[in-house]
Amino acid sequence: MKVLIVGGGGMLGRKLIAHISRNSSIGKNKIKSITTVDAYNGNLDVDTNVPIDAVTADITDFETCQKLVNDRPDIIYYLASVVSGEAEANFEKGYKVNLEGTRNFFEAIREVSDTYSPRVIYTSSAAVYGGPYPELIDDDFILQPNTSYGTQKAIGELLLNDYSRRGFFDGIGLRLPTICVRPGKPNAAASGVFSNIIREPLSGQQAALTVSKQTRMVFASPQSAVGFLLHAGQIDTNLLGSRRCLTMPGITATIEEEIQSLRRVAGEKVVSLIREEFDPNAQKIVDCWNFPPFKATRARELGFTCEQSFDQLVLNHIENELGGKIMGVKL
Amino acid sequence: MKVLIVGGGGMLGRKLIAHISRNSSIGKNKIKSITTVDAYNGNLDVDTNVPIDAVTADITDFETCQKLVNDRPDIIYYLASVVSGEAEANFEKGYKVNLEGTRNFFEAIREVSDTYSPRVIYTSSAAVYGGPYPELIDDDFILQPNTSYGTQKAIGELLLNDYSRRGFFDGIGLRLPTICVRPGKPNAAASGVFSNIIREPLSGQQAALTVSKQTRMVFASPQSAVGFLLHAGQIDTNLLGSRRCLTMPGITATIEEEIQSLRRVAGEKVVSLIREEFDPNAQKIVDCWNFPPFKATRARELGFTCEQSFDQLVLNHIENELGGKIMGVKL
Repeated sequence: MKVLIVGGGGMLGRKLIAHISRNSSIGKNKIKSITTVDAYNGNLDVDTNVPIDAVTADITDFETCQKLVNDRPDIIYYLASVVSGEAEANFEKGYKVNLEGTRNFFEAIREVSDTYSPRVIYTSSAAVYGGPYPELIDDDFILQPNTSYGTQKAIGELLLNDYSRRGFFDGIGLRLPTICVRPGKPNAAASGVFSNIIREPLSGQQAALTVSKQTRMVFASPQSAVGFLLHAGQIDTNLLGSRRCLTMPGITATIEEEIQSLRRVAGEKVVSLIREEFDPNAQKIVDCWNFPPFKATRARELGFTCEQSFDQLVLNHIENELGGKIMGVKL
Repeated sequence: MKVLIVGGGGMLGRKLIAHISRNSSIGKNKIKSITTVDAYNGNLDVDTNVPIDAVTADITDFETCQKLVNDRPDIIYYLASVVSGEAEANFEKGYKVNLEGTRNFFEAIREVSDTYSPRVIYTSSAAVYGGPYPELIDDDFILQPNTSYGTQKAIGELLLNDYSRRGFFDGIGLRLPTICVRPGKPNAAASGVFSNIIREPLSGQQAALTVSKQTRMVFASPQSAVGFLLHAGQIDTNLLGSRRCLTMPGITATIEEEIQSLRRVAGEKVVSLIREEFDPNAQKIVDCWNFPPFKATRARELGFTCEQSFDQLVLNHIENELGGKIMGVKL
């Protein structure tokens, strides 16, 4: 099988490529080639058992989309997205990439031929939800986002359902929790603060806490997120019925609970590197989410799994990104 | 105030124009002019106390949209739509008109100026819902349409919310029940059968029942639908919060219950004009709906009202469209 990863240059795409190329498979599906496309691919730097073609291109261009699907990849990961903070700051760009770009790409698949119907895995987001909320969000809860990013993701989900129902492709959408601890440098995602206050102190760096400690979010580790993507690449989509998009399981925690986990795992000295620097603009955007726990019943029944506690997310980061060290010292 | 009605040439638009032009008002808002635009306007044929400008134009053209909003109408009714049956039969046309056309129009409003923020009343549809359903649909139930039309309407709702949240306009969306009894000739709406089996026999004509008697739908009279539109033109939208779209109240009934009402109101001789001519294609599309009752709590609390029984819908048609006559004979 051939895999195409659109938006493969981001953190999640790179981890996904690393996994697939190392194992030459997605579950039981043997993978013989990977094409990854992004506006910025950077250095892939992976041990690969599969040929990887890294294409630098603008996926909002329709002809580019056509070229990418014309050799009929069997499995397509559609991860490309302008992130939440940028989509809020730049209205036009958010709609151009996240709505028009997605639709262009779906149209390019539809136009290949009547007999082509690849698996399409689309990353949606918990940001499709907006308050007021019940105490628990179940799988039937209305998608009413309070950000432009969430709006664009909810539209992508609707398109995915309809294109799948029509048989143009075999879609599955994953409403991802916020990835935490997100490795590397901060990006323009407004949700960056939730990772910054864990990642930076663990490396001995100060981190600015820009939002209130009561702010809630739903989280999964990068490893769980890659696990969701791999599982979606091999699941029997007949089990999904007409609702092709699933809320992924995650850990709901407040900033206060995050800090408590950090204290339990890494101690007070690490926690003391968090400096409170309240930013009303940052608070405004995180207030658009402030999620209660998600039941994620359908996803759990279909075999999507994640961590059990926020402590595990902190430990996961230390193990996978810091070589088992806290502030440079082995645990 | 100036009113613009986009898609004013349809049944609902014409009834709305008749009402506003006769009363020179929408609630407490005095109306000084009406512009109506449609691909086909036909003969307006109304007693009007207000100048009416009927523009024949293609509203999927962006420049046309710009021209329509450049003189800053205060209240805009956006009724334009490819109907359900046509959107299902013609995938490209449905998306072009119902998605791109709507977005073009919203963009044209956004581009007028930072100080322009008209009331925009958008007609969505109960078709944004799709099964599996709970026993009762409440206002928090997920929008997961099973038709392309419903998908396009749900996307329009999401755009309306986001453009309103951003302050580009002051939107309110109405999820309309199926209009019944729909006067005039059948159109390409797949829901036509629900009206045909009432309207045609009441005029002494045979009608084909193309779907099963167990098929359910949710209904409101044309008068109620016009009432929803007028109420939405004057309501305090601060009461809506961030969720700008409301499920309108309606009467849920099966085809069997419709026929029972027709029998009670008009007698067996009228009912005998219904001929069963099952059409699996028609059944397939109505099965995409098959709605349970809607609670419509928010809409009711905000003062949107409709009939209490299907009998009233039949009586309403006899009174308003047939001059009080059944098969040409005065009741």
